[in-house]
Amino acid sequence: MESEEMEKLRKIQAGDVRTASRLIRNLEDGLPEAKTEIRRIFPHTGRAHVIGITGPPGAGKSTLVDALIASFRKQGKTVGVLAVDPTSPFTGGAILGDRIRMQRHAEDPGVFIRSLATRGALGGLSRAVGDAVHILDVMGKEIIMVETVGTGQQEVEIINHSHTVIVVVVPGRGDEIQAIKAGIMEIADIFVINKADRDGATQLSSELTAMLNMVAEFPGGWCPRIIRIGNVFDPGPFGESLEELVSAIGDHHRRLMETELLGDRMRRKTMVEIHEALRDAILEPILKDLMKSGEMEDIAGRLLRKESDPYTLAEEVARRYLK
Amino acid sequence: MESEEMEKLRKIQAGDVRTASRLIRNLEDGLPEAKTEIRRIFPHTGRAHVIGITGPPGAGKSTLVDALIASFRKQGKTVGVLAVDPTSPFTGGAILGDRIRMQRHAEDPGVFIRSLATRGALGGLSRAVGDAVHILDVMGKEIIMVETVGTGQQEVEIINHSHTVIVVVVPGRGDEIQAIKAGIMEIADIFVINKADRDGATQLSSELTAMLNMVAEFPGGWCPRIIRIGNVFDPGPFGESLEELVSAIGDHHRRLMETELLGDRMRRKTMVEIHEALRDAILEPILKDLMKSGEMEDIAGRLLRKESDPYTLAEEVARRYLK
Repeated sequence: MESEEMEKLRKIQAGDVRTASRLIRNLEDGLPEAKTEIRRIFPHTGRAHVIGITGPPGAGKSTLVDALIASFRKQGKTVGVLAVDPTSPFTGGAILGDRIRMQRHAEDPGVFIRSLATRGALGGLSRAVGDAVHILDVMGKEIIMVETVGTGQQEVEIINHSHTVIVVVVPGRGDEIQAIKAGIMEIADIFVINKADRDGATQLSSELTAMLNMVAEFPGGWCPRIIRIGNVFDPGPFGESLEELVSAIGDHHRRLMETELLGDRMRRKTMVEIHEALRDAILEPILKDLMKSGEMEDIAGRLLRKESDPYTLAEEVARRYLK
Repeated sequence: MESEEMEKLRKIQAGDVRTASRLIRNLEDGLPEAKTEIRRIFPHTGRAHVIGITGPPGAGKSTLVDALIASFRKQGKTVGVLAVDPTSPFTGGAILGDRIRMQRHAEDPGVFIRSLATRGALGGLSRAVGDAVHILDVMGKEIIMVETVGTGQQEVEIINHSHTVIVVVVPGRGDEIQAIKAGIMEIADIFVINKADRDGATQLSSELTAMLNMVAEFPGGWCPRIIRIGNVFDPGPFGESLEELVSAIGDHHRRLMETELLGDRMRRKTMVEIHEALRDAILEPILKDLMKSGEMEDIAGRLLRKESDPYTLAEEVARRYLK
C-alpha cells in the first residue's frame, strides 16, 4: 500500500495525466483515499504561479483563458487549467464540461485542462479546487489557471487559492459593478474589461478607477491594473490587449516575489485551507454522527414543533461533542 | 433583564419598527445579545408565507418585488421585505441600501422593508436572513419576501429559508440558463421570464420547459410554472402578467397547505437552520480559541514550511477538542 502510494506520487510528478485525472475525480467525489494521497503530495507543492480568473457568466472568461494558454505556451511555460463548473441536480454532472474552445490545446502535452464540479457538501468544491491545484503543481505545471463563474462568496473562497486574481467584466450591463462588488472586488489584482469595443467600456473603466481611488493603501504597493481587451484574437484600437494582460500578470508575479505580497497570499491560501480542513475534520463527522444515530431527525422534530430553538439545540450538541 | 426581553418581544409582536430594525442590525453585526432575543422569538414564528426571489444582477428583481408589494397590499395583506445585499469592503456597508424604488411604500405601515448585508463570517448572512425572517414573521407580516442577487451556493442557502421560490431570468443573455443551473434550478417553484418583450423570451421559455421535462416527479406534484412578464407596470401582449404571477404564488401556497409540500419545505428550512447553528456553536468557538491562543499562527507556519498538511493538522485539532 505504502509503495503503491509512492508510485502514484511519482507518476503525478512525471506528469501522468491518467493518474492525476483519477485523483482529481476522487477529490470531487469526496473519497477518503483522495485525502491520503493529497497528504503525500502536499510537501512537494508550492512552485506554480496560480492565477484565478472569475467574473459573471458571459464575460468571456473561457475565451480569455484559451488565449492565455496560447500565450504562456509561446513563452515555453507548461500550463494547467481548472475550469470550476456549477452542477445541476437535473443532469447530475458538470454542465459546461471541459470548455469547448480550449480543446484545441488538448493535444499539447504541455497543457492539462480539467473541469471540477460541485458534488459533495457545502464548501467541498473550494477544498477540491485547493487540492486539485496541488496536484497540477506537483505535475510540474508552471502556470495554473483556475477559472470560475460568478462573483459570490463561494467564488471568493475558490479564488483565494490563487496568487494572482483576474476579474473579468464586460461593459453595458447595468449592475455589473454592483455584482463585482460582492467580495471579489477586494481580492482583484487585475481587472479585465472584456469586449471593450462595446458601449460603456470607458464608463466602466472610470467606475473601477474611482473605486480603486477610494483605497488608501494596497498590500505590497500593488494597485490593481485595469486592462481593456477588445477581442483577444485581434487586438483592438485600445493600445491595450492580450499582451498587456500577460505582461501585467508577469509584473504581478515579480511583485509577489520581491515584496511581502507573496507571503500575504500564501498566508491567505493557507488560512482558507486550514478553515476548510477544520470544517471537514470537526463539523462533518458530528453531522454524520447525528444523521446516523437518528438524532438529527429528533432535533428537526423539536424545532418543527417549536419546542426549542436552533441556538439552544446546537449548544446542547456542542456540549456533548466538545471537550 | 428578563422583563426587558419580554418587553422587546411584545414590541416586535405589536409591529414596532424601531425595535425590529435594531434587532435585525444586531443580527447582521453578529452580536450575542441578538441570539438571546431570537430564542425568545422563535416559538412565536411560523405563520408567514415566505417567498424567496432570486436571479442574476439586472434581471429586474427589485422592480418585481415592488410590484408584488403593491399587489399584496391591494389584497389587504401585510408585507415584509428583506433585500439581501452583497457588501464591499471598499465601502464597509450595504451598497444597494434599501432598494430605491420600493421607497414609495415607506409610508405604508403595512409594509416593512429592510436590507441585510454580509458583515460577519462565512455563512453568517444566511443565518442572519433566517433569523430576520423570524422577526418579520413575529411582527405579523403575512407575506415575507426575501430578495437576493445571484444564483450561487450562498443564494441557495439564503433562499432555502423560503416556502415559495421565484427565480427571475431575462432573455438574451447567452449564459442565462447555465447561470441559473447552478443549484437554484432545483429549488425554483416559479420561473419569471422578465422583460419578456425582448428577443429570446420564447427560446428561454422553451429551454426552461425542456429542462423541467427532464424531471420525473416533482414533490407535492408541483411542476414549476414559467411566467412571462413584459413590464410589471403595463402588462404586455403575452396574456401573462403580474396578476398571473400573484395567482401562481397563491396556487403554490395552497399546494403547500394541502399536500406534504409544506412539511418538505419546513424540513428544508429547519435543516438549514440546524446546520448553521451547529457551525456557529461548534466550529466558530474552536476557530476563535485557536486564534486567541496563537495556535492558528503556529499551524499556518507549519503548513507554509510544508512540515505537515492541512488534513493531518486539522485532525490533530479535532482530537484535542472533540470528546
